[in-house]
Amino acid sequence: MRDTHLDEEAPVSAADPNLYLDLGPFPLASGHVLPEARLAYQTAGTLNAAKDNAVLLPHMYSGTADFMHAFIGEGRPLDPSRYFFVLPAQLGSGTSSSPSNTPPPYDRGSFPAVATSDDVRAQHRLVTEHLGIERLVMVSGWSMGGQQTLEWAVRYPEVVERAVPFAATLRNPDHCTVFCDLHTDALRSDPAWNGGSYERSSDVHVGLRRHAQAFALMGASSHMYRAEAWRELGFTSRDGFVQGFLQAYFLPMDPNDLLCQARKWRSSDVALEHGGDLAAAVARVTAKVTDVAFTGDLFFPPEDIRNDAALIPGATYEEIGSVWGHFTMFNLRAEDTAQIDAVYAKALADA
Amino acid sequence: MRDTHLDEEAPVSAADPNLYLDLGPFPLASGHVLPEARLAYQTAGTLNAAKDNAVLLPHMYSGTADFMHAFIGEGRPLDPSRYFFVLPAQLGSGTSSSPSNTPPPYDRGSFPAVATSDDVRAQHRLVTEHLGIERLVMVSGWSMGGQQTLEWAVRYPEVVERAVPFAATLRNPDHCTVFCDLHTDALRSDPAWNGGSYERSSDVHVGLRRHAQAFALMGASSHMYRAEAWRELGFTSRDGFVQGFLQAYFLPMDPNDLLCQARKWRSSDVALEHGGDLAAAVARVTAKVTDVAFTGDLFFPPEDIRNDAALIPGATYEEIGSVWGHFTMFNLRAEDTAQIDAVYAKALADA
Repeated sequence: MRDTHLDEEAPVSAADPNLYLDLGPFPLASGHVLPEARLAYQTAGTLNAAKDNAVLLPHMYSGTADFMHAFIGEGRPLDPSRYFFVLPAQLGSGTSSSPSNTPPPYDRGSFPAVATSDDVRAQHRLVTEHLGIERLVMVSGWSMGGQQTLEWAVRYPEVVERAVPFAATLRNPDHCTVFCDLHTDALRSDPAWNGGSYERSSDVHVGLRRHAQAFALMGASSHMYRAEAWRELGFTSRDGFVQGFLQAYFLPMDPNDLLCQARKWRSSDVALEHGGDLAAAVARVTAKVTDVAFTGDLFFPPEDIRNDAALIPGATYEEIGSVWGHFTMFNLRAEDTAQIDAVYAKALADA
Repeated sequence: MRDTHLDEEAPVSAADPNLYLDLGPFPLASGHVLPEARLAYQTAGTLNAAKDNAVLLPHMYSGTADFMHAFIGEGRPLDPSRYFFVLPAQLGSGTSSSPSNTPPPYDRGSFPAVATSDDVRAQHRLVTEHLGIERLVMVSGWSMGGQQTLEWAVRYPEVVERAVPFAATLRNPDHCTVFCDLHTDALRSDPAWNGGSYERSSDVHVGLRRHAQAFALMGASSHMYRAEAWRELGFTSRDGFVQGFLQAYFLPMDPNDLLCQARKWRSSDVALEHGGDLAAAVARVTAKVTDVAFTGDLFFPPEDIRNDAALIPGATYEEIGSVWGHFTMFNLRAEDTAQIDAVYAKALADA
């Protein structure tokens, strides 16, 4: 268990790339108060004196702040010589307050439910109170990071100048909820899960493998398997890909942390705090929104995102992608990264 | 356990609509010989004196011969006043030789693997040896019934005049195999499955429910959930549909029987006995093939079926369907049935 009272500015060790903001007792949307909550984050680039060059990049399910560095680079649209990037870690992802790092009685399977809005309120405190930033040039993320992006645009229109959600919807699609129910049940199906009270996360490896199988099914498109695009990653068989890519990716993770995130994903809905009135919620948006779908995405199909874009005032709809479907954002093909960069270049053209 | 030595022509009881053909010791593609194998079947209509009005309708995964009656009706393209319909039951489906009705040592989890070609060879004996039919006006089925239809066209071109597979491919798509791995593992994930040695199939209800969830995810399209088309079936919530439709459908079934069928489905490939040479296999086809895809089908996507149709000599590609995706063939909407009937009318126009 890490000490939750950390110096706010210094990484805990040379090996830990994260900074930590102590949030103190943090009230959650559920009504629970999480005592001694903390938000992990990373940064890239330099905040200018006017504090008007900040970009916020929340990450996806199962990810960490590390992941979002993949879109940042000198000479690329997300250029650290121009922008200051803030990469917050999701609550429940293992570095920010999570089932795996919170002391009893809020530990492991007893960690309270977290909502997308909780992350966004915590990130808002980081950005405004802690970093002193009043306006964000852009908020952008993929999947659950995209859900947070949309929540930002609805909740804090006065802060968000541009919102670029990739593969995410205002309200989790029902079919995607059926998927969340399946992959969370896959984790819990392992008797070693034991209601969340396992000793070591690796004890739940059977559940983690089943969970990986669900992502093997839904993360990429049928076209990817037809084209055997997994060969591009160096695998020599389909099953070798499922094991060497998906199982290898998920096996080191903590099941309770994944379940905490999945519960948040499943319930994500920008209208939750607007009495379920989606029109009222999106009417708040003043950011320039670029709503990006991936062709063949089985989690957040293009049709759902196109419908969202039609609801959001002034939003632009973009569809890109490859055989990788939802996994397009994993940068598995250079042309996927190029398409994502092109979206960023266009979204930031007037920045 | 039913006696496998049954009168070949008489139903076992008033409650059993099936006829049974005793196949004797039946050699399987795997090399195993299934002793005292039997094939259950049903018929509709009357075989004419020339024996040239027969249509064979193999059924899908989890189905029974009962199901295929749904496409037969006076005044419809599959008219029992004109055609004689033979509705064979799959090996492994509970009436033909199956894990659930075979005595030790071939019982339950120890039932040998069955291939699509085994069903088709058994059905060929029924049609030619037992019923004395030399030519079939048409073979047609859905999903695994479509896999059998394609196997018929490749294996017995001299018998099949028309082949109309719905939502099936010459070789199971890799993505569909990933799905089979997921839903079979869902069944086996229940500790009560116990390697197939449970006492009562209802003991494995948790596994059967998990298996149902996989079909809730993949059987219909994302569009169906977006449109809440489950309301048309009388359900008042998404979860009510999953429980009341999918769980209710699968819960009465036998897990070993489902696993036997799924193993067959997963490995289905008309080229298996042609050294994997798909072109050589399809070159044998002389039937008039109408290859039918369902829009939004997540098991057998239209693109795979379109590719197949381009390979099969003279085949016609048709795409129909509704928000129900793979489940279009369940006749959940009157217009789905109407589209299927239209395909049959066209395929049989020159019959």
